[in-house]
Amino acid sequence: MNSPRWLDPDEQRAWRAYLRMQGRLTARLNRELQAGSGLSLADYEVLVHLTDRADGRLRPFELERGLQWEQSRLSHHLTRMQRRGLVRREECAEDGRGAFVVISEQGRRAIAAAAPGHVETVRRLFFDGLTRDQVAALERLAADVLARLDDDTPGPDLS
Amino acid sequence: MNSPRWLDPDEQRAWRAYLRMQGRLTARLNRELQAGSGLSLADYEVLVHLTDRADGRLRPFELERGLQWEQSRLSHHLTRMQRRGLVRREECAEDGRGAFVVISEQGRRAIAAAAPGHVETVRRLFFDGLTRDQVAALERLAADVLARLDDDTPGPDLS
Repeated sequence: MNSPRWLDPDEQRAWRAYLRMQGRLTARLNRELQAGSGLSLADYEVLVHLTDRADGRLRPFELERGLQWEQSRLSHHLTRMQRRGLVRREECAEDGRGAFVVISEQGRRAIAAAAPGHVETVRRLFFDGLTRDQVAALERLAADVLARLDDDTPGPDLS
Repeated sequence: MNSPRWLDPDEQRAWRAYLRMQGRLTARLNRELQAGSGLSLADYEVLVHLTDRADGRLRPFELERGLQWEQSRLSHHLTRMQRRGLVRREECAEDGRGAFVVISEQGRRAIAAAAPGHVETVRRLFFDGLTRDQVAALERLAADVLARLDDDTPGPDLS
């Protein structure tokens, strides 16, 4: 490898601040969500993806892609959510493409109960401290990075 | 609870874009780091925290605070890293405050070998697509959110 292009001091500060914000924000959101609703942030994200679909069902590979989790993590997590009655699996014998993951009535009630408090926390910890310009700049930055991730030659597993 | 202050469409788009960027970027960085060095992003973060100290050692609670991981996750992860020879634990009998986590020679070699490739990936996927203004705005946004997290009344576990 050629000599690495290290981050300059501005980039280094921005990157560390981003990582630190992300870590602390995620930990705090998870803790407040758990305390208020019994759902983890991971449960919540799975349920959000399922409720984005009119019929509340997705194939595991669609969830994997949407959540960007490793397959084994997703599989273990869904098993635990199934045991708690938040989702169920439905076999789909006719086309041989395997099961659907389906949100249960209990899962729908759980996310409906959790959402107001969670959104309030997101607002309090994040949006209330930012200007409209900062919010617009964040959306733009995230879109730019996502476009770059789309363009970049994928690694061996074609994600 | 009062009626929730839902996110408006601008905030909703920004929040979803942020979550999506964060999820995809973390997944990709983890995959490329693993493929290039055998370290996971979690291993890397632990080793970065330890190498930030001149003597390469931290108490578990300091690592827990720095990483913002749950105590059980940290404990399991350190056990696995210890088995792989990346860190070791040192008892500290004299003051009764428990063990230190210490980076090993092998851990130092592992992060020194991984860092150039990882930084190159961060640059390629993140900084190369952003302007200096975007980088400065990100640092400011992260600092604003971190200040808010510091000010906010902590939850029951005093994090």
